[in-house]
Amino acid sequence: MFSRPVPWLPAEGDAALITVSSRIRLARNLVDLPFPGRATVEQRRRILAQASAAAAGIVAAASRLIVSEMPDLTDLERQLLLERRLISRDLCRMGAGSGVLLAPDEHISVMVNEEDHLRIQALLPGLHLRAVHRLADDVDTKLSRCLPYAFNERLGFLTACPSNVGTGMRASVMLHLPGLALTGQIEPLMRGAQELSFTVRGMFGEGTEAVANFFQVSNQATLGESEDQTLGRLDAIICRIVDAERVFRQRLVRERREHLYDQIGKAYGSLRYAHLLTSKDAMNQLSLLLLGCDLGLFHNLRRGPLQELMIRVQPGHLQKLAGKTLEEVPRDVFRARLVREKLGNMADA
Amino acid sequence: MFSRPVPWLPAEGDAALITVSSRIRLARNLVDLPFPGRATVEQRRRILAQASAAAAGIVAAASRLIVSEMPDLTDLERQLLLERRLISRDLCRMGAGSGVLLAPDEHISVMVNEEDHLRIQALLPGLHLRAVHRLADDVDTKLSRCLPYAFNERLGFLTACPSNVGTGMRASVMLHLPGLALTGQIEPLMRGAQELSFTVRGMFGEGTEAVANFFQVSNQATLGESEDQTLGRLDAIICRIVDAERVFRQRLVRERREHLYDQIGKAYGSLRYAHLLTSKDAMNQLSLLLLGCDLGLFHNLRRGPLQELMIRVQPGHLQKLAGKTLEEVPRDVFRARLVREKLGNMADA
Repeated sequence: MFSRPVPWLPAEGDAALITVSSRIRLARNLVDLPFPGRATVEQRRRILAQASAAAAGIVAAASRLIVSEMPDLTDLERQLLLERRLISRDLCRMGAGSGVLLAPDEHISVMVNEEDHLRIQALLPGLHLRAVHRLADDVDTKLSRCLPYAFNERLGFLTACPSNVGTGMRASVMLHLPGLALTGQIEPLMRGAQELSFTVRGMFGEGTEAVANFFQVSNQATLGESEDQTLGRLDAIICRIVDAERVFRQRLVRERREHLYDQIGKAYGSLRYAHLLTSKDAMNQLSLLLLGCDLGLFHNLRRGPLQELMIRVQPGHLQKLAGKTLEEVPRDVFRARLVREKLGNMADA
Repeated sequence: MFSRPVPWLPAEGDAALITVSSRIRLARNLVDLPFPGRATVEQRRRILAQASAAAAGIVAAASRLIVSEMPDLTDLERQLLLERRLISRDLCRMGAGSGVLLAPDEHISVMVNEEDHLRIQALLPGLHLRAVHRLADDVDTKLSRCLPYAFNERLGFLTACPSNVGTGMRASVMLHLPGLALTGQIEPLMRGAQELSFTVRGMFGEGTEAVANFFQVSNQATLGESEDQTLGRLDAIICRIVDAERVFRQRLVRERREHLYDQIGKAYGSLRYAHLLTSKDAMNQLSLLLLGCDLGLFHNLRRGPLQELMIRVQPGHLQKLAGKTLEEVPRDVFRARLVREKLGNMADA
C-alpha cells in the first residue's frame, strides 16, 4: 500500500504547473442517529459497518475496498493516509468507530465518523472540478440508495456543523503559487477570496499553515446556491488566480531576475548537498525547484519526479521507505540522503 | 599590479591548514619631528620623501620600489592594498603626506605617516615568526642607517601611542579556526589570550570583526621584554591554539558529524548555485569549504585555489577582475558568477 505514485499529482503540462488538484468533499449524515461527536462507540461502529457494507456494494468486482477502523491503523499508516490527503488531521486522532473506506486507486475515500457520519471525498489531478464532482456525486448517489441520509427539503443535507448545511459540499482546488507568495500577494489574495466567500488555506486544509507555496482555495457557502453554481464560481476565481500567478511570475523574472535565480539556485544547492533536512525545509526548497522547472531554468530536472519527491520526503512516506520508525534526527539524515540521491540521479540523467 | 597570487597564502601542507600567515610590524619615528597626527602636510611630505629615498637605496637593483602617496591612489587601489593586507584601514582614509612603500614581491611594505612615521611590515605564509622577523629586522636596520630614529635608552623606540613604546613590535599570526568557532570556543580563547597579554582580532586587524573564521593573534606588550621573548611566547601560544583547533575539529567530526557535513555541504551547494553573493557570505562559506578540504570531504576541491578565491571575492579584487567599478548588486551578481565558475571548474577537474 502507498508505494505507487500519488494519483492526485498532475502530469506535466501547462495548466498543471499551477493547478495541482481538484477535490470534492460531501458531508452526509444518517437519519435518527446522533452526530459522531455525540454518538456512543456502539452507534459509531454500527454506522461504520453500514457504510462499509453500502460501499462494498458499489465497488467494481475486480477492485477491493479497503476498510480501516482508526485503532487498527498504525501511526505510520495514519500518517501516510494524511500525507496522501486521503484523511484529515482530525480523523488521524480519532478512535473506535471512526474509520476510512478507500478505493484502491485512491481517487475516492470516505471518512466515517469524523465530524459527520460520512465525508465522501473525490480527488483528481489538475483543474477538473466537474469531473471530480461527477466522481463524488456518483458515489454519493449509490450510497444514498442503501443509507438513509438526513435531508431537509428546505435546508438540504443536515450536518454536524451549521457551516456545511445545504449542499454539504466543499469543493477545493490546490494551487502552487510561488509567484504570488514571493511577491507578498498571498494576504491580498486571501482577503479578496474571503469577500467572494472563498477560503484560502495551506496544503493540509483547515488550521494548517502554508507549506511549499501550496494553497487550497475552497467555497465557504453551502447554503443558498446549487453545487453547480458553487463549482462555476470556484472555477472562475481559480482562473483569475492562475492568471495572477502567471503575471507575478513574469514580473519576478523581469524585475528581480537575479534574486529569483539566486533563491532557486541556493535551494537546489542546499538540497543537493544537505546532510540534514527537515520535512518543511525540503518541501519549501522543492517548491522553488518546481518553479525553476516551470521557468525552464533546469535542463535535467523534471517536474513529475520533483512533485513525487515532495510527497516522499514527508515523515510517513520517508519512514515507510526506510522500513522502520525513525526519530527526528535520523529522519532528517535519511531525508537528506534521499534528496541528494534523487537530485543526483536527475542531474546525471 | 595585484593580478598575481597573494604571497602570504600558505602552500598546502599540514600545519598550514591552521596557521595561515605570520606578520611583523615595527613602529618607528624620526627624531625632532611631530608624530603624523600633529605634523603639517609639509612635514609629512618631507618624511615620505626621506623614507622613499632611504628605502630605494636598499631595494635590490633588479626590483622596483613602489612608492605611493595616498591621494594618488584610486579607491580601488587602496581597497586592493587593504585586501592584500599591505596597508591598514586607517591608512586607506588618509590624505596628503601619507603613503606606502611596497616591495614588488609584497612581502615587505612600509606605511608612512599612518599613526607613526614608519610602520615596517613583513608578511610570510605559515607559522614562521623568526623568519618574518629577520625580514622586517633587516629592512629596519638598513633604514636606520639613513633615517634618525627616535630612540630612548631607557624606554626603547618612541611611538605615537604609548602602547607601542619599547620594541615597537607587533607580531601576529593569522589562524583559520573553524573548529573553535563552530564549537563556541572563540570567547574563551580571547579571554585566555588576554590573560597572557595577547590579543585576538579579526582578519583585518584592530576594530574589524571576524570573517570566515580567520583570527589574528598578536602581542600586546612591547615594553619589558625583548623581541625574542615576545616571539617565543607568541610561538608557544599559537602552538597551543593549533592543538586546541585540532582537538575541536576531531570532536566535531566525532560528535556532530551530520551537522558538520550538513553545514559544509550546504555552504558548497549555496556557493555552487548562488546568483547573488555578498563578500561576507562568500568568505564565510569558503571558510567551511576549506574545513571540508582539511577533513578530506572533497575529491575535487583543493585548498590553494579556494584560499585564493577567498581573496578574489573581496570588493577590490572583484572590481579589478571586472575591469570596472561595480555597485553593490552588480558586484554580488558578478561575485556569484565568479564563484560558480571557479567551483564548477574545480568540480569538473
